[in-house]
Amino acid sequence: MGAGRFISLEGGEGVGKSTQLDALSQALEGRGLEVLVTREPGGSPGAEAIRKLLLEGEDTRWTPRAEALLFAAARADHVAKTIKPALAKGVWVLSDRFLDSSLAYQGEAGGLGIDAVRDLHRFGSEDFLPDRTLVLQLPDGEGARRAASRDSDGADRIGGRSPAYHAQVDAGFRKMAEAEPDRVQIIDASGNAQTVTARLLYALGDLLP
Amino acid sequence: MGAGRFISLEGGEGVGKSTQLDALSQALEGRGLEVLVTREPGGSPGAEAIRKLLLEGEDTRWTPRAEALLFAAARADHVAKTIKPALAKGVWVLSDRFLDSSLAYQGEAGGLGIDAVRDLHRFGSEDFLPDRTLVLQLPDGEGARRAASRDSDGADRIGGRSPAYHAQVDAGFRKMAEAEPDRVQIIDASGNAQTVTARLLYALGDLLP
Repeated sequence: MGAGRFISLEGGEGVGKSTQLDALSQALEGRGLEVLVTREPGGSPGAEAIRKLLLEGEDTRWTPRAEALLFAAARADHVAKTIKPALAKGVWVLSDRFLDSSLAYQGEAGGLGIDAVRDLHRFGSEDFLPDRTLVLQLPDGEGARRAASRDSDGADRIGGRSPAYHAQVDAGFRKMAEAEPDRVQIIDASGNAQTVTARLLYALGDLLP
Repeated sequence: MGAGRFISLEGGEGVGKSTQLDALSQALEGRGLEVLVTREPGGSPGAEAIRKLLLEGEDTRWTPRAEALLFAAARADHVAKTIKPALAKGVWVLSDRFLDSSLAYQGEAGGLGIDAVRDLHRFGSEDFLPDRTLVLQLPDGEGARRAASRDSDGADRIGGRSPAYHAQVDAGFRKMAEAEPDRVQIIDASGNAQTVTARLLYALGDLLP
C-alpha cells in the first residue's frame, strides 16, 4: 500500500462542491485507493461539537476573531484525531474545506488578514497542509450569486452572507492559488459534472499512483 | 459615577478563590461601587457554551493546542459581550480567572509557552488586559497538594491534574507577576478569610475611588 495523500476541496457556495466530492471519492476508489471523506468545520467528534457552535445561531453570535479561533480549534482537533491517523494508515483523505476556507472567509472576506489567520493554523496544527488543494470556481461571480439566492431556504449563518462577501471569498482563494501555486489550484467549475470531475483528476495526476 | 475597573482574581486550585471573590465583591459594593462578578472560561452565553466543551469529557479530549484556542475564543467572546459593555457603564468587573490562567496553565504548565498563548490573546481580544490581576497563592505548594486531594470528588478535567502540574501553574503565575508587576500581584492566601480579603483590598488601594 502506498502513502496516503491529503486533498482538500474548496470553493464558494453553489459551485457543486458536494457533487464533486462524491464523484472524486468514487474515482479514487476506482483506482484501488482507500479514501476517507471528511469535512470542515468538523470531521472528528470534538470538531463536530465546535461546528454546532459555529453554524447555529445569529450571524452576530460570534465576533470575527472568536469565530476564527473556533475554526482553528476545530481544525487542530480534526488534524490530530482524524486526518493524521488516516494518512498514517495509507488512506487518502478528501476534505470538504480546510485551511484555505478560513484564509478566504475569515482572513480575506472577514477582514482579519490572511497572515493573522495563517498564524492561528501555525499555532493550532503546526502548519500542517494538504498535498493539494483544489478550488472550484465559476467565472464572473456566478457562484456568489447562486449562494445568495439560496439564503431563504436554510442557509447557515456563514453561507447566508451577501454577494459582495462571497465575491471577496472568491478573491481570497485566488490569492492563495497565486501564493502557493504547487499546492493550491483553481479548477473551472462550469460545464457538466463529469467534465469538472475530469479536471479535478487531471489536477491530481502527479500524485496518483 | 466613576470609571469602571476590571479586576481578575487568579490562583491555583484550593486557595479559597471563590470565598475571596464573594468577600471582595461585597467589600467593593460596600464602598458604593456597582460590581459585576463573572468567570472564565465563560461569562457570556457563547463563552459558557465553549466552557462546556472545555471542562467536560476525558482529559485527552482536546490536544493542548486546541484547548488553548478554545480558551482564547471563549475569552474573546467574554471581553466583547460582557466585560467591555459593563466597563462602559461604569461597572466594576470582577472576574474569576482571566488571561493569566491561560498563560499559567496552557502556556507554562502545558508547555505551549507563555508568548504563544499571549499571541492568541493579542489576536482574539486585541490584548485587552485587567487593570489589576490578583493571584492568590499559598506558600510551599500547599495549594497544589490541596487541589490534588480533591481529585476523587468531582474535579473537572483540568482541576484534576497532578501536583507537579499544579506546581508549574503556580510558577507560571509568579513569572507573570515578575513580568508585569504593576498589573499582576501575588497575594498571600494563608491565614483567615478576613485577613486575605484585607490584603486584596490593600492591593487595590490605588484604584479605589
